[in-house]
Amino acid sequence: MRNDLPVDGARLWADVMALAEITDPAQPYTRRSFSPRFLEGRAWLARRFEEASLKVHIDAGGNLIGRRDGSDPARGTIMLGSHSDTVPSGGRFDGIAGVIAALEAVRSLDQPSRHAIEVVDFLAEEPSDYGLSCVGSRAMSGHLDAGMLAYTNAAGEKLGAAIDRIGGATRDLAQARRNDIVAFLELHIEQGIVLESQNIDLGLVTAIVGIARVEIIFQGAADHAGTTPMTLRHDAGVAAARTIALVADSASALAASGQGHFVATAGVLTLEPNAANVVPGRARVVFDIRAEDHALATVFVAELDSESARIAAAAGVERSRFALLSNTTPAACDPRLRALLAQSAETLGFSTTSLASGAGHDAAFVSRIAPSAMLFVPCRGGKSHAPEEWAEPDALAAGAAVLREAVRRLDAR
Amino acid sequence: MRNDLPVDGARLWADVMALAEITDPAQPYTRRSFSPRFLEGRAWLARRFEEASLKVHIDAGGNLIGRRDGSDPARGTIMLGSHSDTVPSGGRFDGIAGVIAALEAVRSLDQPSRHAIEVVDFLAEEPSDYGLSCVGSRAMSGHLDAGMLAYTNAAGEKLGAAIDRIGGATRDLAQARRNDIVAFLELHIEQGIVLESQNIDLGLVTAIVGIARVEIIFQGAADHAGTTPMTLRHDAGVAAARTIALVADSASALAASGQGHFVATAGVLTLEPNAANVVPGRARVVFDIRAEDHALATVFVAELDSESARIAAAAGVERSRFALLSNTTPAACDPRLRALLAQSAETLGFSTTSLASGAGHDAAFVSRIAPSAMLFVPCRGGKSHAPEEWAEPDALAAGAAVLREAVRRLDAR
Repeated sequence: MRNDLPVDGARLWADVMALAEITDPAQPYTRRSFSPRFLEGRAWLARRFEEASLKVHIDAGGNLIGRRDGSDPARGTIMLGSHSDTVPSGGRFDGIAGVIAALEAVRSLDQPSRHAIEVVDFLAEEPSDYGLSCVGSRAMSGHLDAGMLAYTNAAGEKLGAAIDRIGGATRDLAQARRNDIVAFLELHIEQGIVLESQNIDLGLVTAIVGIARVEIIFQGAADHAGTTPMTLRHDAGVAAARTIALVADSASALAASGQGHFVATAGVLTLEPNAANVVPGRARVVFDIRAEDHALATVFVAELDSESARIAAAAGVERSRFALLSNTTPAACDPRLRALLAQSAETLGFSTTSLASGAGHDAAFVSRIAPSAMLFVPCRGGKSHAPEEWAEPDALAAGAAVLREAVRRLDAR
Repeated sequence: MRNDLPVDGARLWADVMALAEITDPAQPYTRRSFSPRFLEGRAWLARRFEEASLKVHIDAGGNLIGRRDGSDPARGTIMLGSHSDTVPSGGRFDGIAGVIAALEAVRSLDQPSRHAIEVVDFLAEEPSDYGLSCVGSRAMSGHLDAGMLAYTNAAGEKLGAAIDRIGGATRDLAQARRNDIVAFLELHIEQGIVLESQNIDLGLVTAIVGIARVEIIFQGAADHAGTTPMTLRHDAGVAAARTIALVADSASALAASGQGHFVATAGVLTLEPNAANVVPGRARVVFDIRAEDHALATVFVAELDSESARIAAAAGVERSRFALLSNTTPAACDPRLRALLAQSAETLGFSTTSLASGAGHDAAFVSRIAPSAMLFVPCRGGKSHAPEEWAEPDALAAGAAVLREAVRRLDAR
């Protein structure tokens, strides 16, 4: 571990490991938002915030915030953070690393600041049991509406009631909406293999992709696989296979075209009846399409619509469903903050590269109300949302040091 | 219903319906081999055989046989029949129609014959709970071996014990092997839509296809669908999709090449983890390949081997398994018996066409020890192995009449 950094890497690492230990012991690492374990983690976090002389509160949207005031209230707030909740059987770094690195950056500042500085643990970034992700950052950006508050979990509790239960105040939800943030910085593990494969210290995020989910159902006829001639078939599986192959080809071409990060995936494919001696009568495919450039995704979805219809007709099957399940717009990271992070990294001697975030993050919502940027640290094999998720102690320390340097420079501006 | 036919169509239909009624009432139409319901069906059949003055016995392989002796024992036996067992929730015609039509053909003969004539209900043509199909016809053709007799059902009963329990005698299994059959004719519903789509009365089966089952597993990496660039993926689903599309193209070309019935189907495809935001890490496909010409199937499987390996390499995934799960040879129907069936149909004024059987049948085993042929009757929409399976009374009567005419001509030869 480099010992010339202005942050305490060992303390940072110890805190990440300590928070990770607050897990459902039956399925490490699990700290689901709104659960008793999650509240236990937040109580632990609040103590760490207080030890760092931060004033702790939970905002109306349920976000845990540690704040130190600045000498010049007119300058507004610099905010750093991420989230402490996990997916079931998740890892020790996704979200957590960003919260603890933010804390480390702030507690290692050796001077008072003109700006107020806040460390935030956003509520429920991961898809929650209420069917919504990024709950806290939606609230902070004014994008948590009454319809969402009415979402209900399996036990019948409404999301609004759950937010209130963990310390929020949804009757005053508008108070969660911030207009004083002059900069938001989020550190996160990459959840990909670009940095690792290129042996680069840190990633400067250009944009957080928009995500379109498309569900297609091909309806054919479940005929006898032996007796039905090839010419008389209505094979839904073949239509699905041709569509998947075409999507892979088109997405690869677009990804190579220099128009930013673009990926498309057929992660879900289900055949019915899925029996060796029966022609597939029905096939359901879900495509996940992510683009830095929203126009590219829009054209891609339109082409998927027309091409899947053409493939269905050629295969003699009905394309009985083509549904855009969801469609979020990309969020560009603020160019000035990206440059600031780049300079901060260079000053400290870390190599960087620019890359898009293929995953969603709280920063995408915060970017709607404030200049925002993200810093990626490498993670082993790109593995995430799994117990084997791993980031090196040195990488986390490097990230925290860059956050600290960026805050120092922001405050001096 | 034509009333100029030398068979009693109404009696035939009533018997098919009566046997169909002997079903598990909870899931019509179910009469699983070796079950009490199956034995009840056979007891009913034995009474019908006896009413037709046939001598009834169960052979060593568990086949129920009704026999009338001929005036010239040296001429051997003409055998007609099919099977009375069903798949779970099957239909009223698959197998049953062939047994009752055989009975009707024989009981409507108005003269003694020189040949012995037998009506057979083969044991367990459908895949049985012991993991084997065509149990009775295997025994009759000498293809039921000791290894198969040791197959065990879920309750722990061995197949050999089950055969003995229903009246067979596996200690004398060699006695089931026949060498006196001079002709075997099996009527069966088509289980396809060739006859119906061409509005043809009866089908003359050229051959019963050989069936090859190939299992392929592609092993890739279950990476994040958002963060993993297209160029760094190991997408097992894309490899499977490309292979399925290629198989559909190749099989269609072969089917159109005039080398007999050829079909290939990807009926089973399973992705793991099958989640929208994860690149498929593993894909398992089972291909079912059926050909009248065994050489064609052999070449096809070899090409599937090399092409799937090529596709896997191009997709950056490992083809971790390529297994020929089973591979049966086609059974050609005897040309002289086919001609005889054609002449018999023509005499009675029925239109015919030649077609292969894409499904397996007892006749495939009997053809190894005796000249054998099959007669197909149309069935609605090609549906089979389902309660909606349907053949018209007229179609069954036509088939039985042709069987009767063929027996008459065989006996006169």
